[in-house]
Amino acid sequence: MIKTLIVTHGNLADELVAAARTIDEELARGVHPLSLPWDVDFDIARETVTGRLQELDEGSGVLVLTDMFGGTATNLVLPSLEEGKVEVVTGVNLPMLIKLGSLLDRGLELHELARRVVAAGQRSIHVASEFLGSRG
Amino acid sequence: MIKTLIVTHGNLADELVAAARTIDEELARGVHPLSLPWDVDFDIARETVTGRLQELDEGSGVLVLTDMFGGTATNLVLPSLEEGKVEVVTGVNLPMLIKLGSLLDRGLELHELARRVVAAGQRSIHVASEFLGSRG
Repeated sequence: MIKTLIVTHGNLADELVAAARTIDEELARGVHPLSLPWDVDFDIARETVTGRLQELDEGSGVLVLTDMFGGTATNLVLPSLEEGKVEVVTGVNLPMLIKLGSLLDRGLELHELARRVVAAGQRSIHVASEFLGSRG
Repeated sequence: MIKTLIVTHGNLADELVAAARTIDEELARGVHPLSLPWDVDFDIARETVTGRLQELDEGSGVLVLTDMFGGTATNLVLPSLEEGKVEVVTGVNLPMLIKLGSLLDRGLELHELARRVVAAGQRSIHVASEFLGSRG
């Protein structure tokens, strides 16, 4: 199964996974947080990231979710990008993790999984009054 | 100035604001976290939410960012929706908060601010390999 690693600075990764697990323990199967201290040394953090990616890869690759493009957490992961091995999705939010729970069993290839997670994340962001209006 | 309230269960709201403040103290001006315990009573939480909204509204309204549509945090805030007073954006992520920092000074009306935050949030979510490919 494809595993997921959430990489952020601060405790955001831990809190996202804790929230997903509280909603449904099963949803967060295979999703692992990696919260990095704000003052972490870049080279040390790169070693931590590459170590975790190797541990998690069972042959189908690892999906990495990061807080934001241009941020240090993303910059730490980008050197590991490799087709079919490591895909990175930026802008992580809670609905992406919830959606992941229903996508992981479908045997999707890594890049397709990343695209579906992106679509789910984008669709989850609404102005609630417009969304309710369009449904009503 | 329009104030922003982030409402989530667990400590997600606190961690998002802490991350934004660590990136740039100025960016998180006027952004307030409200993290609710997972086992909070709905009626008590509604009182907390309405109290915070009243405190924060300086006349231009309050933008509320929540973790996900259909989640309890969003359900707690939706009864407070009111044109020009309270707008709710779901699917909060860190890039939205960073973008807010540059939007708050522009004197936008509440609904327009909410739309721009939604657009920024959606645009922040990429498959990094595609994004890099399209730029390269």
